[in-house]
Amino acid sequence: MIKVAVLGYGTVGSGVVQILDDNNSVIASRLGEDIEVKYILDLRDFPGDKNEGKIVHDYNVILEDPEIGIVCETMGGVNPAYQFSKDALLKGKSVCTSNKELVENHGPELIKIARENGCNYLFEASVGGGIPIIRPMNTSLAPENIQKIMGILNGTTNFILTKMAGEGANYDDVLKQAQEMGYAERNPEADVEGYDAGRKIAILSSLMTGKTVKFADVHTEGITKIDTLDFEYAKKMGKAIKLIAMAEKNGDEYTAMVAPFMIGADHPLNGVNGVFNAIYLTGDMLGDVMFYGQGAGKLATASAVVSDVIDCGRNKNKEIPCVWSEEKLTLGDYKKTERQFFVRIDMRSRGQVVNKFSYLKSIEVTDTEFALVTGKMTEADFLDKINSIDNVISWIRLA
Amino acid sequence: MIKVAVLGYGTVGSGVVQILDDNNSVIASRLGEDIEVKYILDLRDFPGDKNEGKIVHDYNVILEDPEIGIVCETMGGVNPAYQFSKDALLKGKSVCTSNKELVENHGPELIKIARENGCNYLFEASVGGGIPIIRPMNTSLAPENIQKIMGILNGTTNFILTKMAGEGANYDDVLKQAQEMGYAERNPEADVEGYDAGRKIAILSSLMTGKTVKFADVHTEGITKIDTLDFEYAKKMGKAIKLIAMAEKNGDEYTAMVAPFMIGADHPLNGVNGVFNAIYLTGDMLGDVMFYGQGAGKLATASAVVSDVIDCGRNKNKEIPCVWSEEKLTLGDYKKTERQFFVRIDMRSRGQVVNKFSYLKSIEVTDTEFALVTGKMTEADFLDKINSIDNVISWIRLA
Repeated sequence: MIKVAVLGYGTVGSGVVQILDDNNSVIASRLGEDIEVKYILDLRDFPGDKNEGKIVHDYNVILEDPEIGIVCETMGGVNPAYQFSKDALLKGKSVCTSNKELVENHGPELIKIARENGCNYLFEASVGGGIPIIRPMNTSLAPENIQKIMGILNGTTNFILTKMAGEGANYDDVLKQAQEMGYAERNPEADVEGYDAGRKIAILSSLMTGKTVKFADVHTEGITKIDTLDFEYAKKMGKAIKLIAMAEKNGDEYTAMVAPFMIGADHPLNGVNGVFNAIYLTGDMLGDVMFYGQGAGKLATASAVVSDVIDCGRNKNKEIPCVWSEEKLTLGDYKKTERQFFVRIDMRSRGQVVNKFSYLKSIEVTDTEFALVTGKMTEADFLDKINSIDNVISWIRLA
Repeated sequence: MIKVAVLGYGTVGSGVVQILDDNNSVIASRLGEDIEVKYILDLRDFPGDKNEGKIVHDYNVILEDPEIGIVCETMGGVNPAYQFSKDALLKGKSVCTSNKELVENHGPELIKIARENGCNYLFEASVGGGIPIIRPMNTSLAPENIQKIMGILNGTTNFILTKMAGEGANYDDVLKQAQEMGYAERNPEADVEGYDAGRKIAILSSLMTGKTVKFADVHTEGITKIDTLDFEYAKKMGKAIKLIAMAEKNGDEYTAMVAPFMIGADHPLNGVNGVFNAIYLTGDMLGDVMFYGQGAGKLATASAVVSDVIDCGRNKNKEIPCVWSEEKLTLGDYKKTERQFFVRIDMRSRGQVVNKFSYLKSIEVTDTEFALVTGKMTEADFLDKINSIDNVISWIRLA
């Protein structure tokens, strides 16, 4: 019998408790042992809740109970989750988390502490919600030099962009709708400015390189400037507009960024809609693979946490492989990466763009605007040129 | 230092040798130990080949060498691969295979022998080529009761169907082209009749249920009857025609089948084209997930074998979890499953179909045919009705 403590009885935490209960027998049959939730740590009481009797307010009860071998940290935020996780690991209790912020800030340190104490720090649920990605990267893709990762890693922005594309609605209206439906926070900044996706690509880039990529070093641009006409142009070109979190290897350098991209109809990420997420990776041997699923949601995310719990149960006193050292990776300048760009300008500046860019095609949607797709060029070269042109309406990268 | 023997220096086997060589350092960094190919078993000599010195013709050299801890079986076919694998496992040597035929025929028996001898029998490459699917099912999806699997599991047929859809070419011409390009065998039966996909869904259904699903019990239909007009209808409905390997849970019963299906534009399998494969699964907690990538090809398939080798290296003397017992699962009758059907009949029989089916819509492509999409009904009910109608031209299931 494996006894587990769940920290935080919120959305994900209650999902973990539910799955361990509802799917108890199938989990036991695959693990070869029963799992039981013994404690749930929360500041609140839950009178009348089925699991009322498991609620504790004092973390020491969990820490000092030698029966607890695995702790699920589903609290979110860096504090006190960081201290709680560290304390558990130092006692040899494995920790399974959905907390991307903590993983991004302290992942390699906590992995190291786990190793030194004969237990594991696992974080499948921290990126891509229910989508298996961390474990596949550490196992299935272990033979690969990963060349590139492109991820739709934020459900809120993908919901907003999908709605805007489908309904021709504008950003503000769709954001409001998303907030009413509970898909966006009241303060949506972390999602719409690309910070959430940025933390996640920092984690994936770290696994890709084996070193530590910091979110602070990831260039992030959000979706707030995308307007309804951008979608009309995109449709005309058979493309979708997606917030892409990207990490690339160019020579010996890695770059990482988050920004809106236009994605061609042939690309598997083109059809990833609504709250679904996907991670598209390119390995040097394997070629392209994609992992698709629900990037958030109570039970999907909780399922990923439970898969980690099962892994810990199967690997007592054994290190579950994850190469992520504390050594910091200095990212290369994203402005050196090359791509095509879609550009919209006021018709009056048409002459200027036509002179400056070797462009592949122009696209007409209105009389007052001129739009084109550039040839392949570095970000630096593009920014240089675009900043010297008057009356630029907007521009979006192509992938 | 881990020493490996590769059985069969063909496409996949030489890919395994190449990856272990080319990506030696990244693999060693993730495994924490070097891997080296010590022997390659093949009937042929390879004069001038870089690895000429590693070729052996006598399997006993490998079996009797205590340095060999892992054997990659990339020979294909049941014999002598079955005996070779069994002999290795009985000596405590783990076996990693790409051989779906052997896995389908003797998987659970070989897993059991491995367990009894402190080693592992792994087969990631046997389904979906380079796509991580076996390991994710055994680990990431361990908390789930899987309700349904839909897979595009055969690259040859998907290549043919994609070409037919894109170019309006007929089956015979595209098959010939695929043969010339090396994407289809001279005798294409195993692919085009759905047998290859059938073996693969038998393996996935076994992992889904934990028992043994036999290929012989999987209902299979191929793609040879799909004609160019079917694609015109499909296009008019915004659908794609794909050969789908499906396993479903209905109540306490499981069913499995392979057949062409029309897939809606919103479904992620709709855009899986060419030689790409994908497996779409529905879990009771996780919802829908999809794994996408190259379903065949030398290096993609070899990468999956190498991922198993790394797993064996990381788990010496430790069982890598896989729930697949020798107990046979009796499948339910696929004719009890429900779905919609697309039907084409000669215009003369229009009255008959209209009377027999509660149909949702009719689709016009030619003057001489009548086509419709039925409401949801059981396969049995549909077959009953369709067999009583004269001049049926063709019909295809909807997914």
